[in-house]
Amino acid sequence: MTGFGNVGQGVAQLLAEHRDEYQGRYGVRLLLTGVADRRGMVVDPSGLDERGLLLAKRERGSVSTVAEQGRSVRGEFLESSEADVFVEASSTNFVDAEPGWTSIRSALGLGMDVVLASKGALVLYYAELMEIAHSAGKTVSYSATIGAPLPILELTNRALVGASVMGFEGVLNSTSNVILQAMIEGKSYDEGVQLAQALGIAETDPTLDVDGWDAAAKAAIVANTAFGSSLGINDVSREGIREVTPEQIRGAVVTGSTLKLVSSTSRHDGTVVAEVRVEQRGPADPLGRLRGSELGAVIHTSQLGDFTATVENSGGVTGGIATAYTVLRDVLNLARARGWDSAGPT
Amino acid sequence: MTGFGNVGQGVAQLLAEHRDEYQGRYGVRLLLTGVADRRGMVVDPSGLDERGLLLAKRERGSVSTVAEQGRSVRGEFLESSEADVFVEASSTNFVDAEPGWTSIRSALGLGMDVVLASKGALVLYYAELMEIAHSAGKTVSYSATIGAPLPILELTNRALVGASVMGFEGVLNSTSNVILQAMIEGKSYDEGVQLAQALGIAETDPTLDVDGWDAAAKAAIVANTAFGSSLGINDVSREGIREVTPEQIRGAVVTGSTLKLVSSTSRHDGTVVAEVRVEQRGPADPLGRLRGSELGAVIHTSQLGDFTATVENSGGVTGGIATAYTVLRDVLNLARARGWDSAGPT
Repeated sequence: MTGFGNVGQGVAQLLAEHRDEYQGRYGVRLLLTGVADRRGMVVDPSGLDERGLLLAKRERGSVSTVAEQGRSVRGEFLESSEADVFVEASSTNFVDAEPGWTSIRSALGLGMDVVLASKGALVLYYAELMEIAHSAGKTVSYSATIGAPLPILELTNRALVGASVMGFEGVLNSTSNVILQAMIEGKSYDEGVQLAQALGIAETDPTLDVDGWDAAAKAAIVANTAFGSSLGINDVSREGIREVTPEQIRGAVVTGSTLKLVSSTSRHDGTVVAEVRVEQRGPADPLGRLRGSELGAVIHTSQLGDFTATVENSGGVTGGIATAYTVLRDVLNLARARGWDSAGPT
Repeated sequence: MTGFGNVGQGVAQLLAEHRDEYQGRYGVRLLLTGVADRRGMVVDPSGLDERGLLLAKRERGSVSTVAEQGRSVRGEFLESSEADVFVEASSTNFVDAEPGWTSIRSALGLGMDVVLASKGALVLYYAELMEIAHSAGKTVSYSATIGAPLPILELTNRALVGASVMGFEGVLNSTSNVILQAMIEGKSYDEGVQLAQALGIAETDPTLDVDGWDAAAKAAIVANTAFGSSLGINDVSREGIREVTPEQIRGAVVTGSTLKLVSSTSRHDGTVVAEVRVEQRGPADPLGRLRGSELGAVIHTSQLGDFTATVENSGGVTGGIATAYTVLRDVLNLARARGWDSAGPT
């Protein structure tokens, strides 16, 4: 695993707490055999102690300070981990997708399946990434990149098999939607940002969220998955929530509606379009009903009507841990597909 | 495939219309190599002509009247089909699960994976069925049995991997809920039944629907899948909609609520409980919002909050074809898991 921020630490924590339970339920024992963060790396093919890694990160700033366990290596980190699966969980980089992109290609070259929590490679090099994986006979899973833990990619990829997706619209960026709801309730934009930060949802610099970059990346990833396109983040027509006017707020309030930052994609005559817009949605609309940090998606199909999926997080986890769950979901589903579990593929 | 009623004919129709498309999208060519209905059977390991079967059924009452194609055999129907997958789509039988149960065991014994559209074996012999399949190294898929095309089993089985399902509640029987809505709108029970029949949703004899048997079977199947229990249909505490009183209707109407036949299951201290109840649900409730023949489910999880999935069928298909899509979804997902597609397992 590369990256040991909120998501990476969440993965380590879940493994430490639930390893035996997962083995019992899914027939596969998951070992964390290597972790790299910004300052260094640690490897042990027989399995690292996650609690030691979490302590080292918290107290000394890097997993590489865990000298007494595993080996700290440079250069051949991925190979020496002897891993079956590579989890890329470093910060998303929309400029050049590094350092993830180089690591992903190396991992595929070494015969590892890949699970992504970062979006950069998916929205800058989608077609190339899938071609490399296909040639290597390996898979790239990335459900953690789209409104985790909402199972959108499971829905488009597995649940609608045999039917056709015609369009998709989703509320996928929690930060923007918490801020928009605060504004609907009479608060200022700045107060909304502070609220989202207090809830632990927004980054210190919420630019990628409030300017729609995160929502645009998600729109592109859904489009590519559902329609087989290879849209990049710059192909997505995008707006953010900083430009929302008092008139828009009032217009929504007087009609009993709300404003949502909506990621959408559709296909017309073979052309795939993806966009991010601030939209007014009424209470009868499945996305208009969402409150707070709730996420939701509507999948329009040609034969089976409209599927709606939402996740309501009260009492549930948010942020890094929710994404970490989704990473492990991809890993465990991969294990089942590969027959690594004792029961074989299902 | 055994059974050639609405679902079986739907499968045949979809294969005839979409075989090339599925091959292009999923890398696997699906052939229908044998069909048995109540009066006879027809087999051709190189693939039957589905349009001929549909015509024979419609005009002469049985697939076995297609003498000019394939071979009509008795006794060794399953073996001579040389199929990889057995689809059981005969009418659900809650008394002894026949004729499905015998065929299912034969198919597993012959090394076929099994896809079920009928519920009998799942709610009378669940543990035995899964044990036989496990011993044979084969899979039993049955998402068509639970409110198809709603992807409930995908959600509990694949999308929540790593998290725990605490409880489930669903509106899963269209007939009952169409009738209940008609009653809320002032119609009589009998008028509601006629409406459901006119919509093509209700059977001529709607007993299994209106007395809650179908909803109870679905509650048991979800319970067994989510919690690993082996509840039978008679373990489900059940009520139907025939006992709904005018007072219940008025009580719902005056509060702006509706009545829904809800299938639910939960686990407390290791004990799994499943039940079917007529419940009053308000407009803020995810199941209370459902209208007409819409289906919906809420999955309560311990770590990830509440997942809601609904399908809104306006413009979409209902009944046999929706179930047929779900059967093919299971077959195609199986093909991917087995690596029968050119791309290998994903």
